[in-house]
Amino acid sequence: MKLLQVKSVEEVVKIITDSFQEINRVQELKMEDSLFKVLAEDVYSPEILPPFSRSSVDGYAVNATDTYGAGESLPAFLQLVGEIKMGENAEKINRSETRYIPTGGMLPKGADAVVMIEYTEKLGNQVMIYKQVGPGENVILAGDDVKEGELILKKGTVLKEAELGALAALGINNVTVYEKPVVGILSTGNELVSNTEKELKNGQIRDINSITLASIAKKYGAKVLLGGIASDDFDEILNKASNLLDKVDVLLLSGGSSVGTLDFTSQVVKKLTGGNLLVEGISVKPGKPTIFAKKDNKAVWGLPGHPVSAMMIFNYFGEILLNILSGSRELKFKKICKALLTRNIPSSAGRTDWIRVRLTKDTNNYQATPVFGKSGLITTLIETQGYIEIPPQKEGLEKGTWVDVILWG
Amino acid sequence: MKLLQVKSVEEVVKIITDSFQEINRVQELKMEDSLFKVLAEDVYSPEILPPFSRSSVDGYAVNATDTYGAGESLPAFLQLVGEIKMGENAEKINRSETRYIPTGGMLPKGADAVVMIEYTEKLGNQVMIYKQVGPGENVILAGDDVKEGELILKKGTVLKEAELGALAALGINNVTVYEKPVVGILSTGNELVSNTEKELKNGQIRDINSITLASIAKKYGAKVLLGGIASDDFDEILNKASNLLDKVDVLLLSGGSSVGTLDFTSQVVKKLTGGNLLVEGISVKPGKPTIFAKKDNKAVWGLPGHPVSAMMIFNYFGEILLNILSGSRELKFKKICKALLTRNIPSSAGRTDWIRVRLTKDTNNYQATPVFGKSGLITTLIETQGYIEIPPQKEGLEKGTWVDVILWG
Repeated sequence: MKLLQVKSVEEVVKIITDSFQEINRVQELKMEDSLFKVLAEDVYSPEILPPFSRSSVDGYAVNATDTYGAGESLPAFLQLVGEIKMGENAEKINRSETRYIPTGGMLPKGADAVVMIEYTEKLGNQVMIYKQVGPGENVILAGDDVKEGELILKKGTVLKEAELGALAALGINNVTVYEKPVVGILSTGNELVSNTEKELKNGQIRDINSITLASIAKKYGAKVLLGGIASDDFDEILNKASNLLDKVDVLLLSGGSSVGTLDFTSQVVKKLTGGNLLVEGISVKPGKPTIFAKKDNKAVWGLPGHPVSAMMIFNYFGEILLNILSGSRELKFKKICKALLTRNIPSSAGRTDWIRVRLTKDTNNYQATPVFGKSGLITTLIETQGYIEIPPQKEGLEKGTWVDVILWG
Repeated sequence: MKLLQVKSVEEVVKIITDSFQEINRVQELKMEDSLFKVLAEDVYSPEILPPFSRSSVDGYAVNATDTYGAGESLPAFLQLVGEIKMGENAEKINRSETRYIPTGGMLPKGADAVVMIEYTEKLGNQVMIYKQVGPGENVILAGDDVKEGELILKKGTVLKEAELGALAALGINNVTVYEKPVVGILSTGNELVSNTEKELKNGQIRDINSITLASIAKKYGAKVLLGGIASDDFDEILNKASNLLDKVDVLLLSGGSSVGTLDFTSQVVKKLTGGNLLVEGISVKPGKPTIFAKKDNKAVWGLPGHPVSAMMIFNYFGEILLNILSGSRELKFKKICKALLTRNIPSSAGRTDWIRVRLTKDTNNYQATPVFGKSGLITTLIETQGYIEIPPQKEGLEKGTWVDVILWG
């Protein structure tokens, strides 16, 4: 694989954003099973909310006119004709009459406001009102929150606690959501054996990328289909990759880093996508020898074999891609911790550097210490909480600088 | 309920942190089913990693001594005796011999370094070496990454992609993790009917808190047990709450906001916990009338009935509590977006204010616009992406200030 047209991280993001759209498979789910799913249609309210005018305080339901002029020294006297019970229909009041009403209680006909109990005094069958109220005061009117037929949730909304609460309030029991994108994973390499293998032969190592890439895909809300391991054989890789691609939205091939295996991956990806390669190499460290191609609305990645490189590439770009495929139209943010850099970090201009760091905390601040290590070494990764991005226009960072640490999860 | 000893947000956090510990139920899981679970024991490596010395480049395996003095003008000549294949045992080399080795290939006996292919030239059965290498150069030695018996993952670690990758590399197929904490939810109020109810009678509203609180619990990795709805009847609430508390680690009661129902909740919580109330009122808006109590290592919350108040309280304090119960010992961070405030926000000193905001973006910056609304109105919440916290010592925020918006998810 010749990395002649290496693209910047920014360019790759733009390519992903411009080239893909949400998957077109939708499903109807019960509202309570749809947490974190993405709405595939606009949702309109079938009714008004609240369904009846309610009191927002504990107090007395009144006709506001009956309280005009009332004050500390000159209370209004109203006839107490009963109590409104929660969950029950409120019987009407006439002029100069009142009923006790609890917070959330239904406002009776004839009343248009509520006087807070703090400004009243009960004397037998009479209630003294020490403060005047205007129409609508301390009342949430029927339909104040939502009108019938009103658009309440837009297509592309991720259903979180508040959205599900709104659907519950309106009695909407079913929603149409996008299915989760499916990510297929195929590890390649003659040296690889399954991670469940207890005894290794000389020259063999266990497959790491299947579980790490699957975990990242699940973190970003995708389903996973594991394709196992393929030997360094063009036909075998192509065959297994092609079968997997039929069933998934995103195919991840991760291969060795030797020249021969890189070429295999590149050729297979070309063959699979009819030569529709969008990216051949990214100016980022780690992860430069990454291939990205497209077939219909399906994405095919040729990821480096190094576990750390493959993880970082898919962690970064996979989030953006899966977000688009999922149908979400929401702003996305990363979890970040501001920290003080504990040592200098050298970096080459013209390339994005992702530097893994260990976070520690003293009384006031977080400190970020870069953890360098050959990218094949998994322990350098499990000791870190996140990474720092050094953009292409910068040459390194100095000790004592405040940095944004992008957290793993 | 008298809120005489209202506590600050900070005090409540400290009470939670000091009063609870991780749940003591553990389970053994397959490694691949343990994503985001928390390790309940230290994990030691059963073997070394990498299991054999490997090349980190494509090149020729050599005895470093044979390359001493080699340079552009004076190459060393080595006898090519074959090729090392990925995944296969490497046959030994003698002095002055070499074998081609791909990245990740096993270093043969007799070799202690690898010369990158860029610095070599093959001529029939001979390889010319144009650069000397030192012992260990371009080699990852067996055990360089992990020693046998080494502590690799500590109790309390959340298993994410990297940790699972490390377990895969070492052939560790099973892990002992904490079970998820279980959250029980009981909504109370005569006015409440199930959210699946199609037709409402006058005075009735659908239960919102069950789904919103369940969603938050799931977001923070807990299991949920729904207790349904109880009427405003002391014995009924106590009975249902008591049954639920037997089966859960965290019990959430959410009641109406009228004086009567608040008293019910308070009495029930007292009865359930033998009077062990830790918090009776929090100086925060929204959410002041919150009760928090403890029985053994179980937490009982009396949450306000207002959906928004209940959500915000459990979103904030529930994350901290569930994190402790889950056994996680990792640093936790919130997702934050820096944004410019588009208008003044008034706020009372001496109280924490949580102001919900809508985020928008222009070319360069995010803007945060406060969305005010009576806290019973669900639509004011679904239009927001997060909230701003105004601490007790501040009186409001001015338009144009940079604020940290804490995002919902």
